[in-house]
Amino acid sequence: MPLTGEEIAKHNSRESCWVIVHGKAYDVTEFLPEHPGGPKIILKYAGKDATEEYEPIHPPDTLDKFLDHSKHLGEVDMSTVEKEEKEESAEEIERQERIKRMPILEQCYNLMDFEAVARNVMKKTAWAYYSSGADDEITMRENHSAFHKIWFRPRILVDVEKIDFTTTMLGTKCDIPFYVTATALGKLGHHEGEVLLTRAAKKHNVVQMIPTLASCSFDEIMDAAEGDQVQWMQLYVNKDREITKKIVQHAEKRGCKGLFITVDAPQLGRREKDMRSKFTDTGSNVQAGSQTDNSQGAARAISSFIDPSLSWKDIPWFQSITKMPIILKGVQRVEDVIRAIEVGVQGVVLSNHGGRQLDFARSGIEVLAEVMPVLRERGWENRIEIFVDGGVRRATDIIKALCLGAKGVGIGRPFLYSMSAYGQPGVDRAMQLLKDEMEMGMRLIGCSSIDQLNPTLVDTRGLSMHTISVPSDTLGLSVYDPLISPKEKAKL
Amino acid sequence: MPLTGEEIAKHNSRESCWVIVHGKAYDVTEFLPEHPGGPKIILKYAGKDATEEYEPIHPPDTLDKFLDHSKHLGEVDMSTVEKEEKEESAEEIERQERIKRMPILEQCYNLMDFEAVARNVMKKTAWAYYSSGADDEITMRENHSAFHKIWFRPRILVDVEKIDFTTTMLGTKCDIPFYVTATALGKLGHHEGEVLLTRAAKKHNVVQMIPTLASCSFDEIMDAAEGDQVQWMQLYVNKDREITKKIVQHAEKRGCKGLFITVDAPQLGRREKDMRSKFTDTGSNVQAGSQTDNSQGAARAISSFIDPSLSWKDIPWFQSITKMPIILKGVQRVEDVIRAIEVGVQGVVLSNHGGRQLDFARSGIEVLAEVMPVLRERGWENRIEIFVDGGVRRATDIIKALCLGAKGVGIGRPFLYSMSAYGQPGVDRAMQLLKDEMEMGMRLIGCSSIDQLNPTLVDTRGLSMHTISVPSDTLGLSVYDPLISPKEKAKL
Amino acid sequence: MPLTGEEIAKHNSRESCWVIVHGKAYDVTEFLPEHPGGPKIILKYAGKDATEEYEPIHPPDTLDKFLDHSKHLGEVDMSTVEKEEKEESAEEIERQERIKRMPILEQCYNLMDFEAVARNVMKKTAWAYYSSGADDEITMRENHSAFHKIWFRPRILVDVEKIDFTTTMLGTKCDIPFYVTATALGKLGHHEGEVLLTRAAKKHNVVQMIPTLASCSFDEIMDAAEGDQVQWMQLYVNKDREITKKIVQHAEKRGCKGLFITVDAPQLGRREKDMRSKFTDTGSNVQAGSQTDNSQGAARAISSFIDPSLSWKDIPWFQSITKMPIILKGVQRVEDVIRAIEVGVQGVVLSNHGGRQLDFARSGIEVLAEVMPVLRERGWENRIEIFVDGGVRRATDIIKALCLGAKGVGIGRPFLYSMSAYGQPGVDRAMQLLKDEMEMGMRLIGCSSIDQLNPTLVDTRGLSMHTISVPSDTLGLSVYDPLISPKEKAKL
Amino acid sequence: MPLTGEEIAKHNSRESCWVIVHGKAYDVTEFLPEHPGGPKIILKYAGKDATEEYEPIHPPDTLDKFLDHSKHLGEVDMSTVEKEEKEESAEEIERQERIKRMPILEQCYNLMDFEAVARNVMKKTAWAYYSSGADDEITMRENHSAFHKIWFRPRILVDVEKIDFTTTMLGTKCDIPFYVTATALGKLGHHEGEVLLTRAAKKHNVVQMIPTLASCSFDEIMDAAEGDQVQWMQLYVNKDREITKKIVQHAEKRGCKGLFITVDAPQLGRREKDMRSKFTDTGSNVQAGSQTDNSQGAARAISSFIDPSLSWKDIPWFQSITKMPIILKGVQRVEDVIRAIEVGVQGVVLSNHGGRQLDFARSGIEVLAEVMPVLRERGWENRIEIFVDGGVRRATDIIKALCLGAKGVGIGRPFLYSMSAYGQPGVDRAMQLLKDEMEMGMRLIGCSSIDQLNPTLVDTRGLSMHTISVPSDTLGLSVYDPLISPKEKAKL
Repeated sequence: MPLTGEEIAKHNSRESCWVIVHGKAYDVTEFLPEHPGGPKIILKYAGKDATEEYEPIHPPDTLDKFLDHSKHLGEVDMSTVEKEEKEESAEEIERQERIKRMPILEQCYNLMDFEAVARNVMKKTAWAYYSSGADDEITMRENHSAFHKIWFRPRILVDVEKIDFTTTMLGTKCDIPFYVTATALGKLGHHEGEVLLTRAAKKHNVVQMIPTLASCSFDEIMDAAEGDQVQWMQLYVNKDREITKKIVQHAEKRGCKGLFITVDAPQLGRREKDMRSKFTDTGSNVQAGSQTDNSQGAARAISSFIDPSLSWKDIPWFQSITKMPIILKGVQRVEDVIRAIEVGVQGVVLSNHGGRQLDFARSGIEVLAEVMPVLRERGWENRIEIFVDGGVRRATDIIKALCLGAKGVGIGRPFLYSMSAYGQPGVDRAMQLLKDEMEMGMRLIGCSSIDQLNPTLVDTRGLSMHTISVPSDTLGLSVYDPLISPKEKAKL
Repeated sequence: MPLTGEEIAKHNSRESCWVIVHGKAYDVTEFLPEHPGGPKIILKYAGKDATEEYEPIHPPDTLDKFLDHSKHLGEVDMSTVEKEEKEESAEEIERQERIKRMPILEQCYNLMDFEAVARNVMKKTAWAYYSSGADDEITMRENHSAFHKIWFRPRILVDVEKIDFTTTMLGTKCDIPFYVTATALGKLGHHEGEVLLTRAAKKHNVVQMIPTLASCSFDEIMDAAEGDQVQWMQLYVNKDREITKKIVQHAEKRGCKGLFITVDAPQLGRREKDMRSKFTDTGSNVQAGSQTDNSQGAARAISSFIDPSLSWKDIPWFQSITKMPIILKGVQRVEDVIRAIEVGVQGVVLSNHGGRQLDFARSGIEVLAEVMPVLRERGWENRIEIFVDGGVRRATDIIKALCLGAKGVGIGRPFLYSMSAYGQPGVDRAMQLLKDEMEMGMRLIGCSSIDQLNPTLVDTRGLSMHTISVPSDTLGLSVYDPLISPKEKAKL
Repeated sequence: MPLTGEEIAKHNSRESCWVIVHGKAYDVTEFLPEHPGGPKIILKYAGKDATEEYEPIHPPDTLDKFLDHSKHLGEVDMSTVEKEEKEESAEEIERQERIKRMPILEQCYNLMDFEAVARNVMKKTAWAYYSSGADDEITMRENHSAFHKIWFRPRILVDVEKIDFTTTMLGTKCDIPFYVTATALGKLGHHEGEVLLTRAAKKHNVVQMIPTLASCSFDEIMDAAEGDQVQWMQLYVNKDREITKKIVQHAEKRGCKGLFITVDAPQLGRREKDMRSKFTDTGSNVQAGSQTDNSQGAARAISSFIDPSLSWKDIPWFQSITKMPIILKGVQRVEDVIRAIEVGVQGVVLSNHGGRQLDFARSGIEVLAEVMPVLRERGWENRIEIFVDGGVRRATDIIKALCLGAKGVGIGRPFLYSMSAYGQPGVDRAMQLLKDEMEMGMRLIGCSSIDQLNPTLVDTRGLSMHTISVPSDTLGLSVYDPLISPKEKAKL
Repeated sequence: MPLTGEEIAKHNSRESCWVIVHGKAYDVTEFLPEHPGGPKIILKYAGKDATEEYEPIHPPDTLDKFLDHSKHLGEVDMSTVEKEEKEESAEEIERQERIKRMPILEQCYNLMDFEAVARNVMKKTAWAYYSSGADDEITMRENHSAFHKIWFRPRILVDVEKIDFTTTMLGTKCDIPFYVTATALGKLGHHEGEVLLTRAAKKHNVVQMIPTLASCSFDEIMDAAEGDQVQWMQLYVNKDREITKKIVQHAEKRGCKGLFITVDAPQLGRREKDMRSKFTDTGSNVQAGSQTDNSQGAARAISSFIDPSLSWKDIPWFQSITKMPIILKGVQRVEDVIRAIEVGVQGVVLSNHGGRQLDFARSGIEVLAEVMPVLRERGWENRIEIFVDGGVRRATDIIKALCLGAKGVGIGRPFLYSMSAYGQPGVDRAMQLLKDEMEMGMRLIGCSSIDQLNPTLVDTRGLSMHTISVPSDTLGLSVYDPLISPKEKAKL
């Protein structure tokens, strides 16, 4: 016999705290102090249906994995649960207004345009989670701005009638040298989540990297693939290596073609824009006081399993449990690229985690400009595949990375923004725009195929100084949402 | 018997689409899908008189060349054509107001001033076409900003009572070392179009380069020249070499003194400011939807004939069909200047097409600073004439280019702006201001003639870093019309 | 028999000027011309109770030390002193309003946030005193901005499960490599003054440096320490060396563990923001005129005892009078670090006095980058402990300093701001935030202990140019209170 | 018998044009086309009293020198001249309001403060003349900004109790190493003109350089000197060498101690801010049209006598006609300093004429950094006295120049601004502030006398790049009056 709303509503305190998720009740009283997101946010839903808040930030199998089965209280008769009349906030009403006045999709001419629209129409907390970076967001912004310090030295009078910018990454033929990189919590932006990106990747024949912290489950995302569509897996390594082993071998069995081990996130970053957005959300319930505030944003909440002790000596073990190519994601200096080659992994991603981890980490593209001359001097440039992510917004950015020696680039946020604003047609158009730009860019730089791209086509003299490049990046700067200082309380 | 308006008005659909241009009717039904500017814009005028929209962006001989003669339906009795009462838009009314309050011509003290005025009084679409650049318009702005990174090392105590800044380009004596470079669609800015520039060039004894994509026909522009006035020809190479040959040999026969082959535009650029301006124009008819939008601005519409396969091996053919000096327009690195000398052309223009093609291409003046030391080392500096265009706004810019080794500079947009704002008196004053500045600049740098200009007179140490130069370029920055993100729909 | 208010009120002129401080009367008539802060400010309180104005800017023992005992008139019967009904200024009323709307402490996520709040809620004159710097405040701002020109080269795949960032400075074990550096006049920001910082330092196990110009007396601050808490002493050297000797030997006897001799302040700086704030305060009484205005801000007022003749030849004398380690505070170039080693002091602080002394002095962190390679070349890097202060706002700043070779960093203003805005809980949170950031930063740079920090982990190529680093420092720039030109008088 | 106003009023046309100046009538009909300022401005006063407009921009002896005596019509009975009721413009009324609300003098804490006040209270045309520079005013602003790229490397622990910053320039002992450099048209800013600066220079024992284009006559300025006060003479060389000779020998006879020959102004600069200000002034009378506008600002009007043929071969002649030391003012590169030494002149001023001549000329301080190492290499550093002017606003700027090798610096505009805003007390305070800052600066850099200043005390690594220095120059940027594009006519 299912539980009733009335029954559950009694357990609405720290002493006894039940919540409903997807029509089932759970006793989380003992779990409260362990909740990575802090107890406050759960207590807000004590005795109530928490599904809407819970859904986008917990993959479907979370409760099975982390809450002892004795605490699974079973089905609830949802007709007996009181529907909360949520009064729409003034903020939400304004957002709905903005959604009505959204530009139509055809008005987006480049990837920054989607960001401008998304900023206007996304829920504030979702926007804060996607758009935030570490500390002062210096590295996050540097990622794109570094590309502005690289200039072209185009060739002329080359036959560019037929342009072929297909390429191969880790053995997979792709239509264009980018892949959809792993980003967490896709359902914050769109109710379908990551599977939407799977379908868009299929349409444009590019690879999708599946995130560990997806809103959809791993299998849902694999299932969404069609035909011979290729997917890779991004892995946060669990402290419990048995769990890790199970995950990796399951991925390989399901057909994953690459294992990208994240190595730049022993602890997930503090993102103050995200924290500030959270605060305002729940702040009204909080009495002024000095107790430490643990709510450090969404990702922190679900990442406590990550193993900060992961080290080079773990790599052979990974090589022993899978035949997938292993790629280290988040390498940030040439010394570590050399070591990666020495330990025999198949690739590295020069990345700073989208500027979400260590502020003042250099951009992947700058690290690439440091790495390749050293590898070429050793004759090692073909012993590993090098990818770059962070800040890619234009096909010219992709071309710059390939000129400098990258095999391909990862793109993340722009697809989240196009998905959040326009759903799958948005992602589709974003990818198509990159292809249009790519054709143009290849022609104008005087190359008809990817293998012709080479370092003499770029001028990187200004790259290492980290000074302002000029002219300014009009669109890029205007879509950046600046950090702010704490706000005063509203005037009464 | 001429056709009647009534008859034509029946053919107002995609199934049967007739339009009137300059008093003649044309059946463009089958041409619709081929129209480089997309079918939408034609359908707007289906069954109606399209002359006003058609005129500035199609040279007079377009219909003869591109529409089969069987579709030329003949004369229309224009008295039977219903005059559309065009309701003037609020925007247009405001523009007319701004025109009434225009500053008088004498208030323009420099070339930027014309741009400030033109931005205020030009039609939005015309402004968008002239003022736009590729992608983020970084290169477009860099063109002028690069000059700000070059500083003078003037000589003192040189007798500069008599200043002579006449010079010779490709054998032609000019009053001042600039020429009017080729820019498309002159009638967008002024109803007379390019012939107005011809007359101004005559008055100031400078060379005009005739654009392939002029609003006036080639012969109209040649006819407008007087006496021994010299003109050059800018050429987009047609896929059909016979057409190209006919054009080139006709130009030579008409007396053109130089053939400038554009080599930086195998495909015409995507200019988002122009696209965005177009969109708003016709957007009211468009239902929200996801179909691809092909209207990529005016120039794209009339440029599909350009041959992207043009390459170095075509150069001997050009040398075989004409005796005009051949100049490659759009060279962007020293390697290609060397090759140009080796294949025996007479000149190169270091140019990035006014920042309208490849964004992050370097400025012509920066490339010049790279090129000349290499040529001098080989003793090749006199084997070719080197021109620079892009961003020239002050006589000091001209002097900088000549100090670094250029033979002359091309100036484009400033004359379009002065023409659009004030007609021929505007262009006249713009040229006169440059001459006044030139006299002053020569005196103050301590040189009484062009041949005294040399590299020791400039300090280019800051040029290659692409960082912000200081102090800021007050006027230049204030007249730049920044890119914007897509706009929300108007509030109802 | 105590004096009465009535009696004192008679002495309200330049001819006879009595004031009350802490319930006692003083005849300051003859002292007026000698008052370092000028006579004006005293005359404002002639015949009245001056305690509130006097308190924060004079340590308790000032009157004993500087006013001849014959002028100490004895106890006042305070019940007979007329209470001035101070009309609250519009400005003060607005400030009280802002205090009511202060963000709660948990909304401060970083050290800049405290500054933003403090700027809003502090008294204008207190804010002006704490926040001001020399001349154009270029050096003051450079101090933080210099850190933005240093980028990380993090290591990956290092076991960072256990992070230990304790360290040792001058033999004292500290929880984290910063100390609370000496800053003057703590009671301007909080009525408890420096002892509040003593308690916070104890809680976080860091060292406090006691300022010569404290609002609390030296002994009050020593007394506030608990257990084995370590304190250092900052010394402005008195012209009268006997006084200096007494002070130093008293400090040693009381248990001070380090003597930091300030060497960058032979004369205390002119801080125009502070002067301008003072002016407006008392300006209403001033008739327009050309006499020199001596009120050069608070610190100037109490610093006339400082000896500008202090020189290297004084160092042996200091070494003869104390066994405390001697550290020179305010060293600014490598030549002087070398000399410091040669004369045998135990440490130097590379510092420019928080940008309050010589404008265009370089930042401590830049000087560090100059110093260490020279010391390493000589093998002298372990012969002295090197500290840095100025501009430290993030744990990443601390890590950068330690990578470059510093033993620890001093932090001053951020603790004043957190104290002024939130009292001790504010300072506590500020220190805790630094510890949280430190743990994160150590993990992300790939180091589990302080001794692993080394120069290969940072990229300082852009440091020496003093050009704008990009991306911009959003928070840092927004909390800076810009200098302004003199204001017009209010409109009547 | 004196002329009557009635009589004169008849001659109010181009055909017969009489004007009154200082109570005397002049027939300027034939002079109209020759007037360097154009005929328009004279015609405005045809038949009327022109004294007020004439006064500040013509030295007293102008009419005697330039108008044939037959055209001097003699005394006018001023009681018969109709007083024009000048309706005060809205602009002037607002200015008078701003004057009433002026900050009092004591609120000016630095030289920029005077500029901020002057901008508010000066007549628009006077402000435009003083504050304007050439073209984009890049060089004018670079002059101060260059100092911001030089940083200090101060010494510590030097006995700086007694500071002596007196020095000697061209044999004259000065209290502080600056001189009042020559600036034109002092009466535009203050009715007393240059003699006011003479008195201030006396008071502070600094040298004044007398400008050729002064509002006061040369003798008036010499007469204003007291005791052994030293003055120098700035010379624009007249085409008629006899006149030049007379002027120079007169100056020597009167006791001038230095002849500064301006070598950077063969033609006086075009200053668009000044031109634009003029335009608005007289624009109301002008019908729109295309005739060339000759009114190029005040200085141009009175400078047509300057000889552009002046060259190195004239120097021996100067040496033959005077025993005064000869100094070339406006030298801009090391090659010309070397030549100056070779021809045996006594000094050079590294200067770009306050940014009023050639835009993109480098700052004097940058040229100094180029010059001195070359001279030192040759052992020539003592063979000539080197001065710098342009952009000096702080004593730290003076110290930087002296560290790099200058003998002294010239300061111009700041004294004009302080004079215009506050009269002599303003100039007095400006000079006193510099002395106060100088004492502080010497102490803080660790030098007790001028001869201790040396290049190791400064860090100039960022100087040559011409990029933005950081942090920004808050006051300097806020007092700069930006150039603007032409304004629309006022709305009716």
